[in-house]
Amino acid sequence: MKRLISIYSLFCLVLFTGRAEDGSRLWLRNTPVTNLPFESISYRGDGGIAVQELQQAWAGMTGSRLPRVDTPQANTLVLKTEKNKPLGKDGFSIRTNETGQTILTAQNETAHLYGIFHLLRLIQTGHTGPFNLTEIPTYSIRILNHWDNLNGTIERGYAGYSLWKWDELPATLSPRYEAYARANASIGINATVLNNVNANPQILSTQYLEKVKAIADIFRPYGIQVYLSVNFASPTVLDGLADADPLRKEVRLWWKNKAKEIYTLIPDFGGFLVKANSEGQPGPQDYGRTHADGANMLAEALKPYKGIVMWRAFVYDPKEPDRAKQAYDEFMPLDGKFHDNVIVQVKNGPVDFQPREPFTPLFGAMKKTPVMAELQITQEYLGFSNHLAYLGTMWEEFLQADTWQAGEGSTVARVTDGTIYPHKLTAISGVANIGEDTNWTGHHFAQANWYAFGRLAWNHNLTAGAIAGEWLRQTFTTNPEFVTPVTELMLQSREAVVNYMMPLGLHHLFAWGHHYGPEPWCDIPGARPDWLPSYYHKASSYGIGFDRTHKGSNAVAQYHAPLSEQFNGINTCPEPYLLWFHHAPWDHRMKNGRILWDELCYKYDTGVQQVRQFQKTWDRMQPYVDTERFLHIQSRLRTQARDAVWWKDACLLYFQQYSKRPVPYDIERPVHELEELKKIKLDMTHHN
Amino acid sequence: MKRLISIYSLFCLVLFTGRAEDGSRLWLRNTPVTNLPFESISYRGDGGIAVQELQQAWAGMTGSRLPRVDTPQANTLVLKTEKNKPLGKDGFSIRTNETGQTILTAQNETAHLYGIFHLLRLIQTGHTGPFNLTEIPTYSIRILNHWDNLNGTIERGYAGYSLWKWDELPATLSPRYEAYARANASIGINATVLNNVNANPQILSTQYLEKVKAIADIFRPYGIQVYLSVNFASPTVLDGLADADPLRKEVRLWWKNKAKEIYTLIPDFGGFLVKANSEGQPGPQDYGRTHADGANMLAEALKPYKGIVMWRAFVYDPKEPDRAKQAYDEFMPLDGKFHDNVIVQVKNGPVDFQPREPFTPLFGAMKKTPVMAELQITQEYLGFSNHLAYLGTMWEEFLQADTWQAGEGSTVARVTDGTIYPHKLTAISGVANIGEDTNWTGHHFAQANWYAFGRLAWNHNLTAGAIAGEWLRQTFTTNPEFVTPVTELMLQSREAVVNYMMPLGLHHLFAWGHHYGPEPWCDIPGARPDWLPSYYHKASSYGIGFDRTHKGSNAVAQYHAPLSEQFNGINTCPEPYLLWFHHAPWDHRMKNGRILWDELCYKYDTGVQQVRQFQKTWDRMQPYVDTERFLHIQSRLRTQARDAVWWKDACLLYFQQYSKRPVPYDIERPVHELEELKKIKLDMTHHN
Repeated sequence: MKRLISIYSLFCLVLFTGRAEDGSRLWLRNTPVTNLPFESISYRGDGGIAVQELQQAWAGMTGSRLPRVDTPQANTLVLKTEKNKPLGKDGFSIRTNETGQTILTAQNETAHLYGIFHLLRLIQTGHTGPFNLTEIPTYSIRILNHWDNLNGTIERGYAGYSLWKWDELPATLSPRYEAYARANASIGINATVLNNVNANPQILSTQYLEKVKAIADIFRPYGIQVYLSVNFASPTVLDGLADADPLRKEVRLWWKNKAKEIYTLIPDFGGFLVKANSEGQPGPQDYGRTHADGANMLAEALKPYKGIVMWRAFVYDPKEPDRAKQAYDEFMPLDGKFHDNVIVQVKNGPVDFQPREPFTPLFGAMKKTPVMAELQITQEYLGFSNHLAYLGTMWEEFLQADTWQAGEGSTVARVTDGTIYPHKLTAISGVANIGEDTNWTGHHFAQANWYAFGRLAWNHNLTAGAIAGEWLRQTFTTNPEFVTPVTELMLQSREAVVNYMMPLGLHHLFAWGHHYGPEPWCDIPGARPDWLPSYYHKASSYGIGFDRTHKGSNAVAQYHAPLSEQFNGINTCPEPYLLWFHHAPWDHRMKNGRILWDELCYKYDTGVQQVRQFQKTWDRMQPYVDTERFLHIQSRLRTQARDAVWWKDACLLYFQQYSKRPVPYDIERPVHELEELKKIKLDMTHHN
Repeated sequence: MKRLISIYSLFCLVLFTGRAEDGSRLWLRNTPVTNLPFESISYRGDGGIAVQELQQAWAGMTGSRLPRVDTPQANTLVLKTEKNKPLGKDGFSIRTNETGQTILTAQNETAHLYGIFHLLRLIQTGHTGPFNLTEIPTYSIRILNHWDNLNGTIERGYAGYSLWKWDELPATLSPRYEAYARANASIGINATVLNNVNANPQILSTQYLEKVKAIADIFRPYGIQVYLSVNFASPTVLDGLADADPLRKEVRLWWKNKAKEIYTLIPDFGGFLVKANSEGQPGPQDYGRTHADGANMLAEALKPYKGIVMWRAFVYDPKEPDRAKQAYDEFMPLDGKFHDNVIVQVKNGPVDFQPREPFTPLFGAMKKTPVMAELQITQEYLGFSNHLAYLGTMWEEFLQADTWQAGEGSTVARVTDGTIYPHKLTAISGVANIGEDTNWTGHHFAQANWYAFGRLAWNHNLTAGAIAGEWLRQTFTTNPEFVTPVTELMLQSREAVVNYMMPLGLHHLFAWGHHYGPEPWCDIPGARPDWLPSYYHKASSYGIGFDRTHKGSNAVAQYHAPLSEQFNGINTCPEPYLLWFHHAPWDHRMKNGRILWDELCYKYDTGVQQVRQFQKTWDRMQPYVDTERFLHIQSRLRTQARDAVWWKDACLLYFQQYSKRPVPYDIERPVHELEELKKIKLDMTHHN
């Protein structure tokens, strides 16, 4: 019989599991396992954080600790520390030998920790050994970017206020700081930027650095390095310097001193993340200097301490006719001009974290400077924490996209991981979706995006499906009756969002005041044109889409052959990117024989039907899921289903004014009025 | 190509038709007809209103008048007045003879008018003659009840304020008074009650009677008799009598004098409609007298002038355990005690105009007193003027219901039309859905309910389908590409409302503040229990429904055998009335094999899917409909589709708390949260 919410059933649940399934434990639930591969453990010294975490998990799974033995026996897990160059700093191997002992080999304590978490993951997902594997992470820096403000709000945060309690720090240390570090370490994340890229200069004040130090001290055992976003004008704000010109001595000195101060407090401080000359932030161009000038000044200051600079390439200008081109135009001339401890951080797509974009052409094109991808884990453009959108598929699509910059197979993954261009510095970043909500991410399924980012950062060849499956098994149950359909749901979910929000290459149809709902009609007098949806969709009685072909903005030319020509041809361009690269006529014939307008209608409708199918799938899962999370997710899916219809109706009714064609008659009809939808003004400027 | 709203297309439309299709012309659009059956007309005298209306219509159809000839020729329409007892007061015959003349025979001018409108209807729906028909109306009084208040509002009115401009009357006469009379005459309606049954005593003041007279003077040529709702306490309010005891001489005299005053002004005044001792209205029971005492006093006052009393049987008491029984219990003992110019007016169902009710058991049971049905044309409980709900099917179901009171075949139609019980006084009333909206009824399709009421009042053997078809042909187009699917839509529409609002005999799940949306959970402290939905649905963990069997309230005993036993048996009761008569367990096995809970879910879902199908059907009709009405109806259907989902979710999520069973997994899932739905409080106390 299905469980319904009631005091009684909640009571039973708590009684049975010992704790509420509120999502706070993430994928680290350590549920009881019947068939365990080890009966004892052997290690030198105190075993450090790795043994500590293993024992804590073991207690969760079995109710007791794993006995320590001095002499390894059959079924003993042996922790071995040894110099092993191929494993690198973070790698490890796990091998079960012929006597039944399992040897976990690594060079240091943090790598042992990764190995332990890997073993625990295998155990929790149903593996019993023997084991024979080697894991070496793809990227050396696997970093979260928190867009957390010092006042506790989070830009594009949909899971409550910031985890970092700046007011209480450093005196009071929330237990969630350690829980956060543990969660990240469990998936191999080894770095984090604590504050928003729209950085408040105060973060570099001595007062705040002491708070940062307190956090860094908690993160250190888990191998998490702390980074900070810095405001380029910090010297003027904090210490009254006349300007922040990166070529001026006083400025350079200021930064050197600041670096020294930081490293005195935090010897393993990671470095700076910088958003400069972008969306109103100060930067070197304010003084006629280049991005390289700015980045190199900071790099110099950090160099003595092995700190690095992550310099963002997210720049665009309202005066330019195609925002998508600007990062490439501005940064390609600087290729090779950055110091070796600078890495350029580039968003996956050339506009801004849309549900679907082609990859930014800087990937692979910038050959002499290391380039790292910035992914967005928080769902700024994919339904906030209301919509179930598993982003593993999006990132897989991105990482496996072929740039052709060094011949076929020059995937984004391979041009950023040091394989094709042998830069020592490799990294990948994800804008965090974490807040102080009990379940960390608002939507329980948004945890999967945090998880998937970590797993892909560790191994970018993992498939989205495999990651979804292992996340589900740890987070809910290993029962295939649950895992199989819900994996399928997850794998479809991002495409569903694309379908009901902006299919066929449409982008940025979002509302002005937020990026949640649709406002393809949005027109704010005096607004930056590149912040208005019509800049992107360009709907007219002729057709729809942004002409980026040779005859248009020629953004296609930023891609390497054969992509440039493929994207340029209306009949060769992959249809998921059609309206990204083309202003196509309404009667453009699609590959399935439909005209564009009809296909657009079917895509929107498909999105709606997909979400309804997700609801059906989820409701059938009730027997396999605790009541608390079942109902929470059920509720969010209901919202998503309503929102999908909202999106569909808004976009179809709006574009129909231009297409002047009927919605195909076998499609479910709109249920809203365009004029009513235009009146919706959500108060979502701040999302906490 | 489909037309979209634009200044240009509206302009073209106006140019072509000569006037906007705003619905103001109802079914009397007189669109051009190619093949006309007459070339001339012949009549005595001035031909009166019949010829006047014919010529006006002819001008609309052809641009010119039908020439009058003294000597009938082939293709002449001849108006003939003759004594013809079988035709009765209102009947007529139309026969085309061998010389090609068509003779319209009737006893008087009004009957000629009916004949002319009948001919025009035939012409407009595609008939070209020859003709050979006789029409004699089913009921002698075919009356609208306006629930219009003297302040211009309308109780349960959803088409704007009242047509009657009491402030302006009698000096200013709105042209819509005549248009109203014409529309009614065109479908055979011959009487109207101008004011709300919750009657303001002022209506009988001399000042108001002069206003009433002005209206009556306009209606008279169209054969429309004016009636008034009267407040039983009028003598006390208007002239300070100590009480309104119907057996007291002064009171009786007061009413006699009032009758005299009325008839002096309005010689053909129809009579009084009375709501007494019902929902707080005063009545004879306030003085220990019976309904018969009260009705007979008024009947006596009206008798000299051939006026009649329509006395409502809509009574119920919060102290009674089953409201549905009370009209029968209170009125059956009075059978035969009313004067012969009293008719008892009984709502079709025993509760109150619900989407589906069984017939009120008084029909057929009350044999010595004439009984008339009160139907509700205005959609108080069927989605106001937002939902498309064609009520022809509901009334057909009601009129053809077999009461068995005089053996098999004692349909409601036959026990009220004088066939089975030979009362001279026969009547049928409909609570009007008319207001000052340009299209009269708010929803264009609500015009069909006004139309269908008139047509059924004239001939209760017409089928709902035939009426829908002729209404569509006159109101939109005779094109079968339009008429066939839209007739089908209309015929399904009321069942769709039943499905998404309250299927399987559920009733009165409406919100407290209005009767639009669902509030099955409604619980107002201190409220009359019989005004709360739980009084009717009685949902519990065991089951749902009102037990009216022998073991329950025994309302089934008010029905004649074999209905009483049929309704009493849970497996013999027709399923559409299951929860009306039974408190059935959630796992009660339905005839299709499903358990009750599942069937309930499927019914709600079917309702939603039906409305979506209506949308599809309607959108396909765009080529056949003017833009103005197409978009208006399209918009209302969108609202209806949203509301259907609202209803489904509200009821299923609420009842699921009791059934504790899942919604069958192949059904579209809820998209709302119960707690959110509970917060919806529409401000709908007054609907103008």
